Amino acid sequence: MKQKIEELLEQLGTFLSGHRYAELSAVLRTLEPADIALIFEEVGISDVVVLFRLLPKDLAAEAFVELETDRQQMLIRAFSDAELREIMEELYMDDTVDLIEEMPANVVKRIISNVSEEERGVINTILRFPSDSAGSIMTTEFVSLRRHMTAEEALAHIRRTGYDKETIYTCYVIDGNRHLEGVLTVRDLLLCGAGATVETIMNEQVIRCFTADDKREVARTLDKYDFLALPVVDSENRLVGIVTVDDAIDVLTDEATEDMEKMAKIVPMEKDYMHTTVFETWKQRIPWLLLLMISATFTGKIITAAEEALSAYVVLTAFIPMLMDTGGNAGGQVSVTVIRGLSLGEISFSDWLRVLLKEIGVSVFCGLTLAVVNFVKLIFIDRVSMQIAFVVCITLLITVLVAKVVGCLLPIGAKRLGFDPAVMASPFITTIVDALALLSYFRIAQILLHIG
Amino acid sequence: MKQKIEELLEQLGTFLSGHRYAELSAVLRTLEPADIALIFEEVGISDVVVLFRLLPKDLAAEAFVELETDRQQMLIRAFSDAELREIMEELYMDDTVDLIEEMPANVVKRIISNVSEEERGVINTILRFPSDSAGSIMTTEFVSLRRHMTAEEALAHIRRTGYDKETIYTCYVIDGNRHLEGVLTVRDLLLCGAGATVETIMNEQVIRCFTADDKREVARTLDKYDFLALPVVDSENRLVGIVTVDDAIDVLTDEATEDMEKMAKIVPMEKDYMHTTVFETWKQRIPWLLLLMISATFTGKIITAAEEALSAYVVLTAFIPMLMDTGGNAGGQVSVTVIRGLSLGEISFSDWLRVLLKEIGVSVFCGLTLAVVNFVKLIFIDRVSMQIAFVVCITLLITVLVAKVVGCLLPIGAKRLGFDPAVMASPFITTIVDALALLSYFRIAQILLHIG
Repeated sequence: MKQKIEELLEQLGTFLSGHRYAELSAVLRTLEPADIALIFEEVGISDVVVLFRLLPKDLAAEAFVELETDRQQMLIRAFSDAELREIMEELYMDDTVDLIEEMPANVVKRIISNVSEEERGVINTILRFPSDSAGSIMTTEFVSLRRHMTAEEALAHIRRTGYDKETIYTCYVIDGNRHLEGVLTVRDLLLCGAGATVETIMNEQVIRCFTADDKREVARTLDKYDFLALPVVDSENRLVGIVTVDDAIDVLTDEATEDMEKMAKIVPMEKDYMHTTVFETWKQRIPWLLLLMISATFTGKIITAAEEALSAYVVLTAFIPMLMDTGGNAGGQVSVTVIRGLSLGEISFSDWLRVLLKEIGVSVFCGLTLAVVNFVKLIFIDRVSMQIAFVVCITLLITVLVAKVVGCLLPIGAKRLGFDPAVMASPFITTIVDALALLSYFRIAQILLHIG
Repeated sequence: MKQKIEELLEQLGTFLSGHRYAELSAVLRTLEPADIALIFEEVGISDVVVLFRLLPKDLAAEAFVELETDRQQMLIRAFSDAELREIMEELYMDDTVDLIEEMPANVVKRIISNVSEEERGVINTILRFPSDSAGSIMTTEFVSLRRHMTAEEALAHIRRTGYDKETIYTCYVIDGNRHLEGVLTVRDLLLCGAGATVETIMNEQVIRCFTADDKREVARTLDKYDFLALPVVDSENRLVGIVTVDDAIDVLTDEATEDMEKMAKIVPMEKDYMHTTVFETWKQRIPWLLLLMISATFTGKIITAAEEALSAYVVLTAFIPMLMDTGGNAGGQVSVTVIRGLSLGEISFSDWLRVLLKEIGVSVFCGLTLAVVNFVKLIFIDRVSMQIAFVVCITLLITVLVAKVVGCLLPIGAKRLGFDPAVMASPFITTIVDALALLSYFRIAQILLHIG
C-alpha cells in the first residue's frame, strides 16, 4: 500500500504541475477515502485545497473525516462558507460531533454557523453526553420503518431515504412516538417471501443500549452479537441514534491501547505517538515515574534497616535484583491477564475466589520450579553455602506467591470499588511486591542465618 | 444482561421440567445466538441436547458456533449422524474449519464423514493455509455477480442465492474464470438509478488481500477502510473467499490480548484465562520467569563486583531498588508505546530516527525532573551527603536515557529483523536496563567518591 501511495503521489504531482485537472479528478475518484486522506497528509496545503475541490462532494466528506486534526483545521480555514456548508451537509452526525470536539473555538464557531438549525440542535444534544458514553459515539442518521409497511414498501422507503444514512442494512421499527419496537435487516427484507410485512419479519426482542451506557460496553455488545449496528434509546425507550460497527472497532482498539498504556504506567492520550510533542509525551509519562520513584523509597528503607544482615552476609545483596525482578514479572503476568479478562468481560467480580485459588495453585508450581532450578544453580554454579541457598529459594517461593495473589486481587478489588483496574493495579503491584519480597528476604535470613 | 440470562434460565427450567416444549421453543426463538450459547453453557448436557433440538436449524447452527469447545464436543457426541449433517450444512465454511481445528481426531473424522464431498474439498483447502493467514479465516460463501447483470437482475440473484451467504451486503463481480473484476454493495444496488448495470455501478479498484497475507494486516485493512468484508484472492487474482468484519474484530481483539500477554512475559494461548488449567497457566508463565531469573544473575554479578564500593558506602545499596524500578518503568513506557504503534501501523521502521530523537528529548526532560526532585529529597529528607546525592541523581539521568533508548530501539530493531517486537523486546529491556543502570551507578560512585 505504501508503495502504491508513493506511485500515486508522483502521478498526481505530474498532473498538478501540468494543471491536468480532469485526469486528476478521474484518478482521485477511483480511490478509497482512507487512501485519499493518506495522500492529503503528504502534499502541501495549497495542493490539498486544489485536490479537495476536484472530489465529488460525498467522497470529499468521507476523505475529510479520515484526515488528521491539523489538516482538517487547515482545510476549514481555506474553505469558503459555501464549501464548508457543503461538506458539513455530507458528514454524518457522529463525525460532525467528533470534528467539533477536536477543533479550536474559533473554528467551531464557523462550523456551527454553517450547519442547519436542525443539525445544530442534534449536535448540542450529542455534545452533552459524557465522552465515554454511547450517546457520544452514536449517529442520528438511521433508517426507521413502521410496522404496517410491506417488505416492498420498506425497500422503497430505504431507496428513497437511504442516501443520507450511515448504514441502511439494519433498520429500526418505531411507533408514532419514536419508541423502538423492532429491528430487521435489509437481508430479511430481500430474502423474505412475497407478501411479508415489517411486522411479521421484525425481531421484537431488540438488543439495545442507553445513551448513558459506557461506549466500551456497547462496542463489546456489538462484537458479541456480530451486529453491524446497535440502537441507542433514551430512558423512555425512544430511539435516538445508532452505533455502527466501524465506530465500535475504533472504541475496542482505543480501549486496548489505553489499557496497555495504563499497564505501562503511561497516562493515556487521544493523539497517537507520532503526533505528540516531546512535552506532551513527558506529561504522559512523568506522573507515574515520579510517584513510583518516591514509593521506591520504602524499598530502600527496608534495605537500610537490614544493614546488619547485609554487612554480615554481603552476598545477600547480590540476589536482591533477581528477587525483585522475579516478583515484578510474576505479578505483572497475573495482573495483565486479569485486567484484560475484566476488560473483555471474561472475568467478573464473582469469579474472585476461583481466580485466587487458581493463582495460588499456579504460584506454587511456578515458585517450586524456580526455587529448585535456582537452588541447583546456587549450590553448583554460584557455590554459596546451603543456608544462603535456602534463604534465597524460600524467599523466591514466598515472593512468587505474594506476587500472584496481589496481582490478581488488586485489579479485581479495584474494579469492584469502581476504579479503573489498569490504572490502580499495575503501577502499585511492583512496589508492594518489592517491599514484601525484601521484608521476607531479610526476615528469613535473620532466622536461618541466626543474625541479630 | 447477566440478570436477564438468570431469569431466562429459571423460566426455561420450569418449562423443561414441565415438558412444555412449545413454550420452550417459542422463548428460544426470540433469543440471539450469543445468548442461547450463554444459556447452553449453564444447563446440564442432557438439557442442552433437548433445547438444541427445539431450535430452528439456522439458529441452532449459529448458537452452536458461539459455544465453548468442550460443549461443542459434547453436543456432537450426542448428535445422530442426521443431526450432525443438518448442523454442518448450516455452518459457514470458516466456522466449520474453526470447529475442525479445535476438535479431537475422532470427532473430526465424524464431522468430515458428514459433510458433502464438495465441502470436504473446500475444508481441506482452507486447512492447508497457515493459521495466521487470511486464507485460514476466510469464508467461501459470498455473493458473486457478473458485470453484464442489471441492478434488478443482481438483486434478484441475491434474493435467490443469498440465504447461504455469510454476508450479502458486499458483492463481488467475477468473470468466467473467477477473476475478481469489481466490487459493489447492496446499498449501491438499492440506491442506483433505473437501468444501471453491475458494470456501471461497480468499483474496479478493488481493495483485496491474498490468501497468504497476515490475518492481522487483513483485519487492519478492513478497519482502515470501514469495510464489511474484504475479498481474498489467490496469486492469479481468482476470488477464493472473503473475510467479514466480525471475524476481523476477533482477530484485532486477539492480537491486542496477545500483545499484552507478550509484554507481560506470558506465552500466549488460544484459550481464555477462565478455561485454562493450572498446569496450562504454569506452562504459559514459567518459561520467561525462568529465563529472566537466570539472566538477573548478571545484575547480581555486577553488585558482587562492586562489593568494595558498597562496603565503603553501605547507603548506596538503599538506592538500588529505586534505580532499577525507575529504569524498568521508563523502559516499559517506551517499549509498550512503540510495540503498540508498530502493531497498529502508526510507526514503521523508517521512523526509527524520529522516534529515537523524540525519546532522547523526552528522556532528558523526564530524567531532569526525576533527578531534581530526587536531589531535593535526598538532601532534605534522607539527609545524605552532597556527593552521594550527585551519584544517585546522575545515575538516575543516565538510567532514564538508557531505558528510553533501549526501549524504543529494541522493538523497532526486532520488527526489522522479522522477530515479534512484543516477544523480543519487553522481557529483555528490564535486564539490559538493570545491568546498565547498576554499572553506571558503581562507576559514577567510584569516580565521585574516589573509591579504589
